Amino acid sequence: MAATRIETDTMGKIEVPTDRYYGAQTARSLIHFAIGDDTMPRAVIRAFGTLKKAAAMTNAGLGLLPKEKLALVEKAADEVIAGTLDGHFPLRIWQTGSGTQTNMNVNEVISNRAIEMAGGEMGSKKPIHPNDDVNMSQSSNDTFPTAMHIAAAEEVVHRLIPSVKELRETLHKKAEQFKDVVKIGRTHLMDAVPLTLGQEFSGYVAQIDNGIKAIEQSLPGLSELALGGTAVGTGLNAHPEFAVRVAKQIADLTKLPFVTAPNKFAALAGHEALVFASGALKALATALMKMANDVRWLASGPRCGLGEITIPENEPGSSIMPGKVNPTQSEAMTMVCVQVMGNDAAIGFAASQGNFELNVFKPVIIHNFLHSVRLITDACHMFTEHCASGIEPNKKQIAAHLSNSLMLVTAMNRHIGYDAAAKIAKTAHHNGTTLRDEAVKLAPPLKDGSGVLTAEKFDQIVRPEKMVGPGTD
Amino acid sequence: MAATRIETDTMGKIEVPTDRYYGAQTARSLIHFAIGDDTMPRAVIRAFGTLKKAAAMTNAGLGLLPKEKLALVEKAADEVIAGTLDGHFPLRIWQTGSGTQTNMNVNEVISNRAIEMAGGEMGSKKPIHPNDDVNMSQSSNDTFPTAMHIAAAEEVVHRLIPSVKELRETLHKKAEQFKDVVKIGRTHLMDAVPLTLGQEFSGYVAQIDNGIKAIEQSLPGLSELALGGTAVGTGLNAHPEFAVRVAKQIADLTKLPFVTAPNKFAALAGHEALVFASGALKALATALMKMANDVRWLASGPRCGLGEITIPENEPGSSIMPGKVNPTQSEAMTMVCVQVMGNDAAIGFAASQGNFELNVFKPVIIHNFLHSVRLITDACHMFTEHCASGIEPNKKQIAAHLSNSLMLVTAMNRHIGYDAAAKIAKTAHHNGTTLRDEAVKLAPPLKDGSGVLTAEKFDQIVRPEKMVGPGTD
Amino acid sequence: MAATRIETDTMGKIEVPTDRYYGAQTARSLIHFAIGDDTMPRAVIRAFGTLKKAAAMTNAGLGLLPKEKLALVEKAADEVIAGTLDGHFPLRIWQTGSGTQTNMNVNEVISNRAIEMAGGEMGSKKPIHPNDDVNMSQSSNDTFPTAMHIAAAEEVVHRLIPSVKELRETLHKKAEQFKDVVKIGRTHLMDAVPLTLGQEFSGYVAQIDNGIKAIEQSLPGLSELALGGTAVGTGLNAHPEFAVRVAKQIADLTKLPFVTAPNKFAALAGHEALVFASGALKALATALMKMANDVRWLASGPRCGLGEITIPENEPGSSIMPGKVNPTQSEAMTMVCVQVMGNDAAIGFAASQGNFELNVFKPVIIHNFLHSVRLITDACHMFTEHCASGIEPNKKQIAAHLSNSLMLVTAMNRHIGYDAAAKIAKTAHHNGTTLRDEAVKLAPPLKDGSGVLTAEKFDQIVRPEKMVGPGTD
Amino acid sequence: MAATRIETDTMGKIEVPTDRYYGAQTARSLIHFAIGDDTMPRAVIRAFGTLKKAAAMTNAGLGLLPKEKLALVEKAADEVIAGTLDGHFPLRIWQTGSGTQTNMNVNEVISNRAIEMAGGEMGSKKPIHPNDDVNMSQSSNDTFPTAMHIAAAEEVVHRLIPSVKELRETLHKKAEQFKDVVKIGRTHLMDAVPLTLGQEFSGYVAQIDNGIKAIEQSLPGLSELALGGTAVGTGLNAHPEFAVRVAKQIADLTKLPFVTAPNKFAALAGHEALVFASGALKALATALMKMANDVRWLASGPRCGLGEITIPENEPGSSIMPGKVNPTQSEAMTMVCVQVMGNDAAIGFAASQGNFELNVFKPVIIHNFLHSVRLITDACHMFTEHCASGIEPNKKQIAAHLSNSLMLVTAMNRHIGYDAAAKIAKTAHHNGTTLRDEAVKLAPPLKDGSGVLTAEKFDQIVRPEKMVGPGTD
Repeated sequence: MAATRIETDTMGKIEVPTDRYYGAQTARSLIHFAIGDDTMPRAVIRAFGTLKKAAAMTNAGLGLLPKEKLALVEKAADEVIAGTLDGHFPLRIWQTGSGTQTNMNVNEVISNRAIEMAGGEMGSKKPIHPNDDVNMSQSSNDTFPTAMHIAAAEEVVHRLIPSVKELRETLHKKAEQFKDVVKIGRTHLMDAVPLTLGQEFSGYVAQIDNGIKAIEQSLPGLSELALGGTAVGTGLNAHPEFAVRVAKQIADLTKLPFVTAPNKFAALAGHEALVFASGALKALATALMKMANDVRWLASGPRCGLGEITIPENEPGSSIMPGKVNPTQSEAMTMVCVQVMGNDAAIGFAASQGNFELNVFKPVIIHNFLHSVRLITDACHMFTEHCASGIEPNKKQIAAHLSNSLMLVTAMNRHIGYDAAAKIAKTAHHNGTTLRDEAVKLAPPLKDGSGVLTAEKFDQIVRPEKMVGPGTD
Repeated sequence: MAATRIETDTMGKIEVPTDRYYGAQTARSLIHFAIGDDTMPRAVIRAFGTLKKAAAMTNAGLGLLPKEKLALVEKAADEVIAGTLDGHFPLRIWQTGSGTQTNMNVNEVISNRAIEMAGGEMGSKKPIHPNDDVNMSQSSNDTFPTAMHIAAAEEVVHRLIPSVKELRETLHKKAEQFKDVVKIGRTHLMDAVPLTLGQEFSGYVAQIDNGIKAIEQSLPGLSELALGGTAVGTGLNAHPEFAVRVAKQIADLTKLPFVTAPNKFAALAGHEALVFASGALKALATALMKMANDVRWLASGPRCGLGEITIPENEPGSSIMPGKVNPTQSEAMTMVCVQVMGNDAAIGFAASQGNFELNVFKPVIIHNFLHSVRLITDACHMFTEHCASGIEPNKKQIAAHLSNSLMLVTAMNRHIGYDAAAKIAKTAHHNGTTLRDEAVKLAPPLKDGSGVLTAEKFDQIVRPEKMVGPGTD
Repeated sequence: MAATRIETDTMGKIEVPTDRYYGAQTARSLIHFAIGDDTMPRAVIRAFGTLKKAAAMTNAGLGLLPKEKLALVEKAADEVIAGTLDGHFPLRIWQTGSGTQTNMNVNEVISNRAIEMAGGEMGSKKPIHPNDDVNMSQSSNDTFPTAMHIAAAEEVVHRLIPSVKELRETLHKKAEQFKDVVKIGRTHLMDAVPLTLGQEFSGYVAQIDNGIKAIEQSLPGLSELALGGTAVGTGLNAHPEFAVRVAKQIADLTKLPFVTAPNKFAALAGHEALVFASGALKALATALMKMANDVRWLASGPRCGLGEITIPENEPGSSIMPGKVNPTQSEAMTMVCVQVMGNDAAIGFAASQGNFELNVFKPVIIHNFLHSVRLITDACHMFTEHCASGIEPNKKQIAAHLSNSLMLVTAMNRHIGYDAAAKIAKTAHHNGTTLRDEAVKLAPPLKDGSGVLTAEKFDQIVRPEKMVGPGTD
Repeated sequence: MAATRIETDTMGKIEVPTDRYYGAQTARSLIHFAIGDDTMPRAVIRAFGTLKKAAAMTNAGLGLLPKEKLALVEKAADEVIAGTLDGHFPLRIWQTGSGTQTNMNVNEVISNRAIEMAGGEMGSKKPIHPNDDVNMSQSSNDTFPTAMHIAAAEEVVHRLIPSVKELRETLHKKAEQFKDVVKIGRTHLMDAVPLTLGQEFSGYVAQIDNGIKAIEQSLPGLSELALGGTAVGTGLNAHPEFAVRVAKQIADLTKLPFVTAPNKFAALAGHEALVFASGALKALATALMKMANDVRWLASGPRCGLGEITIPENEPGSSIMPGKVNPTQSEAMTMVCVQVMGNDAAIGFAASQGNFELNVFKPVIIHNFLHSVRLITDACHMFTEHCASGIEPNKKQIAAHLSNSLMLVTAMNRHIGYDAAAKIAKTAHHNGTTLRDEAVKLAPPLKDGSGVLTAEKFDQIVRPEKMVGPGTD
């Protein structure tokens, strides 16, 4: 039996574990919302630490909070930010839809930790009161959406974008490395005219760049903070300068361009910015999924697939069959992309369900958003490290496909005429031979009058490397 | 620095923590798939325990596994089932799409735990070999989908359905309790003809019943097991009787009607049964969302909402304003329903992405499915306990709405004619008065010639309780 | 300027085109809901014809509607059913969420057409009144969900299932036809142990069967009809026997097992049955998508893809390159499957949004459901006709892959030992040669002492056709 | 039997209706893709007209197309742009996934219409050849994605944004008009502190502004055109300057800032820009759904709902009950929003499914995108005209709610102390009376020593209009 102390709220007394800083409202939430395992993400808790610190600094600046109290709140908030108090935030996503209980959890923990530092008695609310001091000038209704935006922006800027760019750079280097490897193109999965492997990889880079750009374009919306709106968006009980000042303070603390939201009613009741940003994540996910699928198809085989590249072998494929390297990084990546789309569906639905002055689907929105961010971040890092960086062309197979292909027939048109070219291709298709074999066998006259098509001439004419850029050969 | 021992697989040696039963392949997966926090659900691990035990029993029954080995594997598998080895299954969802690494994790843990019980040396693979013994007659490709179905069926049957039925019964009791409380109906959110509060609640019960029925109709598909298909569905390396026998064994162990899948190629490459079952969960979610929304709207107020019911006050609403009871259980429930829809989107997408002999989106499918099951299960239980069971009608408000309503005018048609009735209603609407007030004031002649409409007569004619069933008043 | 006549409703007069049977409420809807091009599906209009006919017959049977009126309503309703009045139903999906305007459209058309047949004056509402006669014992609130279920069940039973079964049978025939074509298996896109092409196709058949079964299991819910619930589900203004009788009547007219819904409040306010049925369509779509993807991958090439089957050439692929047959039927099918998933997302969301006695997202639900049904129906028919029925194995390529594959090495273990077998495979992988080449070159001793491995012996041992069923080679 | 003529393609001859300009490939597509009713949107056909005209101008500018041919192609393309040839584009969405058949449909129609204008014989391909002239320097693979972007950008810029802004302006005017109407706030659906109706409407405006901003931020991606990439992205068979020039030409023709895509491989194989733009539409849809839901809730009643605003009565609500105005515009709008979310799910899925040099889910992507654009455009226009512009406050009801509310108790704290204030509120809640009634009855001493709380003093203190901005009363 764990030791407990008594904490109180307006509903009365309740026992809480002695070794936890949280108080009555957190304890009640644990009872009423024993739903699933999803707890409030670390990034939200950290954002709350920043928010509470900034609010205290702003209130002190406005002469509303005494310096001594500020010092205590700041110290406790810094611990929340640092993560050393993570074990004191046990609440789940599936709680009050305004996130009130998490806001109170933070208020309680900062209050009790500050009290402890001040040598007071936990639960006494003295000298730092969870509501009067820690929650001063605030309401759950404006703190939680503020923490959502801080957490989202921080995770996107500091974790997701760097990880995606790491992958982008790695693929870009591969594109450079492969820029002279001419290979068969494929459209509708069918053999098409050639391009270089470098060009193919440059497409992945450009698609990922599109995703990064989309995410960057969605950041301004995340920079707008609800704080200062208090309970319904009017700012009742907050100093008229609080909203602007606290946003500036948060911007200073985080080095991110946060500003106060121009309309607080919208900031409490709607979540367009997160829907839009999730759409950007989805755009990126479509690019990542395409790339990861291409990689596993290009690496398929070793004998009965396309086999144009090799990827690192990270796990045992087969105990006896060499070359069986399962494309497991692609598999993890594509599963992540699927999850990002499911998460996006939940976010859009949730954001549409506000009523009047509040949207009460906030926790489910930020849960899904940060889940997507985390998965993409980690999956890109793993894919870079354990797959992309080790991709190598299988030049033999690439060359075999290229020389085998019938698509190169188009290069002969100008020299022997469409009809002769088509005849060569048809014969090769029928006989399962190469264009070169049949061309030499048919030996059609050259249109420039210089004789018939020979093997030597064929090799001069049919040069796939001349077909990988604009212009008509 | 934690103590380590050396484990080996076909790729060579690797260090694993001494206090963990898992081996080389699990250790490699931890390095290559450090993606997010979602680990393989407990229900899947438990299902694997059942599967490995059943496979060992079946192999022993077929004379393929010695009795002594069976005894060891069974004992270790029982611990996996019981959950005492949960700390030894650290792998994430975002891994190989066939779940191979989790299958190997289970093989390794059972092997090493069995070795330990036999007094052997962990990692030695003697006397119980993770592949040769624990994985005998199996492949990741057929074990993982089998574990998916076992886990899904067990969680649905043993956890979800009872919890949903508990809520259903509670609402049904409320419907009985409220069967004589006549109230205004609402369509398009507008006042409509009356019904009883009991009828309204009977609708919730019937919608939830539809959801339960759907889930039950989706169970037969989940009962079909892939085991016996081995690597590609042909059953290569498994005894011809293995598939049927092992399904029977699993049915015996779980008391659920599992059978061998009629076509193993489909069982490895497709996941229609889980898509269909997830659709059933979604159908239930639409019913739960509607009910939870109605509850919070009916409880809205206390002064400026509908206020026709009261719900339990679980947390402080307002420190000063009595009656401010936030409908937090509805909020948790509706957020859960939104998540179920997002999860369903991911499941459908993933299930469509199989190629040839395998679908490699298995972990993401079962993750989302079990997430939905868990959330509905827990949310229904919380909602029953902390909301539904405490719902009471606010009879005063219900009566006020009813008597205030203009919809009851329809009851007067037969007695005073359509025109007089309409005039009364229009006047009442214009003046903001009640039908009764204006009816008495207008005092139109009764069509039966018995005089004019009086207050007494009005009360005889306008009886909402006569309007809550079929027939024409 | 088209000729017009005057029609009236309770809001007053409005002009309608002389050559249209619809009346005032339809005309108003055309003004207020000029949104998009999606009109109410033909199947819903037909279902409304059946419903109105059945209601009239039931009312007549209950002595509420005179025989002469019944005869007129029946005749007009028959024309609605037959489709000859389709041009008179111009209303869009994006209208009142209860579908009221479509119900009134039907009432108006039947009334005016009946009046015309009776020699009366259109718009006079005599002798057939759109509300009093055509809508007798009904409300939009119970007719529209009834029409939704009738339309859904009819389209699924009469169109979708036969079309899907046609495809299923065609694939089944192919599975039979290909039952002896041994080929390489593929898991994770990598070469795996062999199976027959017939087995591969049997997997498609079994997956599609799973989808059909799911759809059939979802039909009972669609059989329950809301009719008889009238405005809020109580049945006010309907004869107590109306609900049961009219459902029976509809069952007789349609030869489908319709029954009255056990709880009308649920039938008006919820749509679990359609969510569940859409989930079944989605399950089928995952099977179709996987099959269509496999077909195009197996047909990829002609030279640089897998090329194990050929599909019919329906359109010009390339004007010069023979063998470039784009898998266009697969492309149409997979796009259809994607749309079915999008539609399913809309249906689930919409069904969750009911309030109190009504869900007002009915048109968007049935629009998406019937869209999915129609697309799957047509796409399966096209795919059967223009692709599946013409699939043929490319036996040469299949044999080449099989003999090339290193996976067959497993067959040698028993005969020459694991180490020698692995050495052969590794050498073949390294040299890009076949197992057979290297086996003969290495010529390891046979374990049975009968000499060394020769080409002849190799061909005796390595027989893929022995590896396509259960048992250990 | 319609008259026909013979057209030919590389597969041979086929009959086409004499009165249609399309040719063999269109005719074949009609046979092979009789799937559903969804035809290629008008906006795509118009975009193709622009594209073909621009390509011809560019080719002529580069000396590749003779002036006389240019004149003919231009004239025919202008008719395609104008819409007079719409009846000649019968192809469906569910066709080749590259949209090849629609590209050929356009080539055929322009060719035959040009031939007709030149006095030639349709089907003769002289003097304007569908491939050699109309499709010069192009491939389906780069034309179709180009047409997608042109169509998307034109519809968004010219239709959607103006329509949404019209609604935004109307709501903004209402916000101005209602700026002094103080009303009760609602959070969690429960009574909260007051705000003005104008503030509430300003929230809708700000949310819609967020949506508009998101859409505008997504436009740059849509401005990038694939044209010049030809078959696989390399630009083979196109002049090196073609890509840049033709984009400039399209920009000139459309007055929109189109540029050539920086990487053509990405432009053919990925569709991030449309996924991102669809996400922006979804963000807007969440704002519209919230607004439309608020409007119908605020208008609910007339007697038993919130009733704080009135909305225009567009259709008969009830034939006898005055004031029953169904919020049908809200219903159409919310259904549209649901559809936009379903469409978005389809778009994301489709965009992720590219392989190698091509994504073959193009038609389903643009179909869903333009469907969303069209529905939002039309629904906003209808909502503006038939709902938003006629919204009026029900000041009596607003005032009644406000004075009834217990939330105003917070204003008394400073004057009579927290305890006395709470006591007044509790008594009022218990007795169902107003704060004012109980305050006067209790008559607590004022903290400033000026006597006890009187009715007069209460009215001085409790002034909701002082509570609608920042600051502490």
